[in-house]
Amino acid sequence: MRPFTSTISLDEARRRLDAAVRPIARAERVRLEDAAGRVCAADVTSPLDVPPFARSAMDGYAVVASDTAGATASTPARLRQLDRIYTGHMSSAVIERGTCAEIATGAPLPAGADAVVMVEETRKTGDEIEILAAATAGQHIGRRGADIAMGDRVIASGDLLSPGRVGAIAAIGSADVAVFAKPRVAILSTGNEVIEPGSALAPGQIFDVNRFTLGAIVSAHGGIAEPHRAAQDTVAALIEALDACATADLIVFSGGSSVGERDLVVDAIAARGEMIFHGIAVRPGKPTAFAQLRNASGGTPFFGMPGNPTSCLSNAYILLAPFLRALARLPLHTPRIIRAPLGRRIASAVSRHQFYTVRLRDGVAFPAFKGSGDITSLSQADGYIEIPADQGGVEEGAPVDVTLF
Amino acid sequence: MRPFTSTISLDEARRRLDAAVRPIARAERVRLEDAAGRVCAADVTSPLDVPPFARSAMDGYAVVASDTAGATASTPARLRQLDRIYTGHMSSAVIERGTCAEIATGAPLPAGADAVVMVEETRKTGDEIEILAAATAGQHIGRRGADIAMGDRVIASGDLLSPGRVGAIAAIGSADVAVFAKPRVAILSTGNEVIEPGSALAPGQIFDVNRFTLGAIVSAHGGIAEPHRAAQDTVAALIEALDACATADLIVFSGGSSVGERDLVVDAIAARGEMIFHGIAVRPGKPTAFAQLRNASGGTPFFGMPGNPTSCLSNAYILLAPFLRALARLPLHTPRIIRAPLGRRIASAVSRHQFYTVRLRDGVAFPAFKGSGDITSLSQADGYIEIPADQGGVEEGAPVDVTLF
Repeated sequence: MRPFTSTISLDEARRRLDAAVRPIARAERVRLEDAAGRVCAADVTSPLDVPPFARSAMDGYAVVASDTAGATASTPARLRQLDRIYTGHMSSAVIERGTCAEIATGAPLPAGADAVVMVEETRKTGDEIEILAAATAGQHIGRRGADIAMGDRVIASGDLLSPGRVGAIAAIGSADVAVFAKPRVAILSTGNEVIEPGSALAPGQIFDVNRFTLGAIVSAHGGIAEPHRAAQDTVAALIEALDACATADLIVFSGGSSVGERDLVVDAIAARGEMIFHGIAVRPGKPTAFAQLRNASGGTPFFGMPGNPTSCLSNAYILLAPFLRALARLPLHTPRIIRAPLGRRIASAVSRHQFYTVRLRDGVAFPAFKGSGDITSLSQADGYIEIPADQGGVEEGAPVDVTLF
Repeated sequence: MRPFTSTISLDEARRRLDAAVRPIARAERVRLEDAAGRVCAADVTSPLDVPPFARSAMDGYAVVASDTAGATASTPARLRQLDRIYTGHMSSAVIERGTCAEIATGAPLPAGADAVVMVEETRKTGDEIEILAAATAGQHIGRRGADIAMGDRVIASGDLLSPGRVGAIAAIGSADVAVFAKPRVAILSTGNEVIEPGSALAPGQIFDVNRFTLGAIVSAHGGIAEPHRAAQDTVAALIEALDACATADLIVFSGGSSVGERDLVVDAIAARGEMIFHGIAVRPGKPTAFAQLRNASGGTPFFGMPGNPTSCLSNAYILLAPFLRALARLPLHTPRIIRAPLGRRIASAVSRHQFYTVRLRDGVAFPAFKGSGDITSLSQADGYIEIPADQGGVEEGAPVDVTLF
């Protein structure tokens, strides 16, 4: 049986992961309908002014401002209406002194006009329009290019496409946009005993859990989960599985990475790449490995996650998700943290950084951790608290910071 | 021209929306790979014990605990090894006094054994296994059903399917799960001047922005965006558009809801349903309407959003997203809020609740608002601050709470 050659601290594991990540360089074009949440892969520059014409910002009358000098409700300026201008309609009228045109919000300003008087400051008397307040030049006009000028950089490469940014791309008339590809993440469980949900269990078998929890994490953090069937526990089967995943941007196996005679992932990695770490001083999740595989494209990062469902998912939140986001060029995820009193004492004798799942009830955090092998440690938890390696335990009633899932 | 019959407060608008929402009742089955983030539509009860058999929680030896009483490194208990039990392998060995079986983590416990001694507390000498520490009955055994017992409710109807909950469903062998359907949201821009991005602009025309920003909000908050082509500005065209959207769970139009002779959405709604409100004392976004349409399925909620891109998207964040989440049975979204000093004074003369977009630079919040018609008010903003109706303005340097997008 082989012990872990060395167990590293959580901080050291994070440093090595940060150093190993190569943000994805591959780009693709997506339709604007599918662009939100993606990361822009090239600066987007406007080929036109937005708005493309001077337009009215109000329902009212397009006028020559100087015509309205001194106008009040008792001494209105009187103008002759030449046209009625709706949106999407170019007026051929030319507004000269003494004339005006009725105009809708968003409609193009007619030639000659240099201001809009809102309808509330006008009165219609027969054929005449009375202007009840003096207008200043430029008033209630959205000038051409006021929002975006031709040549403006609307979006920078690397920007996350928020709804507003998607809107800006639409505004300049693009129906699609170049974005960085989502990393393709091959996911595979190892273990003779692991079978697909939906099948019938033979004696000694269990259903695959990790492929689904890992897939959910991958999808939530910008990756495309590519599930593979569970691999058998032989070095040959694992190397074959690694080779089958070689075109992925990231490979995530679970199981087979604990200490033991049959810890085969270590041998499979040795055949195909270089181990960066194997074993972290955290609980749950100690038997987690990270490696770089050699291949045609230079190297594929590899996570060997623990087989125990809670250990696996816990480290997927803590280590895999941040790594994947960096790979996908997504901004850091900042989970919500709330402070709550602990509902029941937690003893922590281990000299490992501990993640302890908790359930919130009436504002109190109750321990939800059953065992590393128990998926209900996580499925029934609302979040987790952390107990540093040098801290003994936490007393009942002590305030704890709960990181919410 | 018609004024708003009455403008209501933002709080009153929220109350009416809360009162109007009917959470979706339609359910569907989805594959487990697609289940994360969905809302479970029926209790899920386990048809089996998890684990389905007693298993070892350690690499080591399955023993009869009483055989090891008083064992120490200097006075070890000596046992004869009957078998070597890997995962996925049922041993036919029966462990009787004086015997043991080597066992891997996760492998089924053989008959007769009642404890596992971890490999670190054993020594192999020839054919004998020396046990170096006394074991207690049950030690290092995951008993059958310890994680989930047959008949346990694993997930409750209404639960949001987190990665952990998806894992729990996999653990009990289900390959799919019943979830509430995502609300289908018909999205349509109104206006003669509005054309599709990707086409060529004729004079007086602008590109559709709101369909894309609304679509992004809808997708991010649990809906399926069903875009429709922009409708012309006639009551007949709008009624036809409403009828074309009648099978949706929610209808969202933008434009055509301002004050003016051609405010046609009001007439279209009058023909097909009942207006709940029209006009909110917020800025931007005053001309926002909400209605209930009469139809075969009893009634479809309708949002009439402002045509101005920033007004439309601002109210999509503030009013549409929470309504849609309630419709989809998703938990309340709690945006991140950070406190920052304001980088430049904001004057606020209006007696309306104001949402003011800001951009964060070096921890300082700078106003990003240009105009309601300017999409860059939002595409270049990181979040917004709120200025209540009764507050004049905010001075430079004053601390403000920025709600991040």
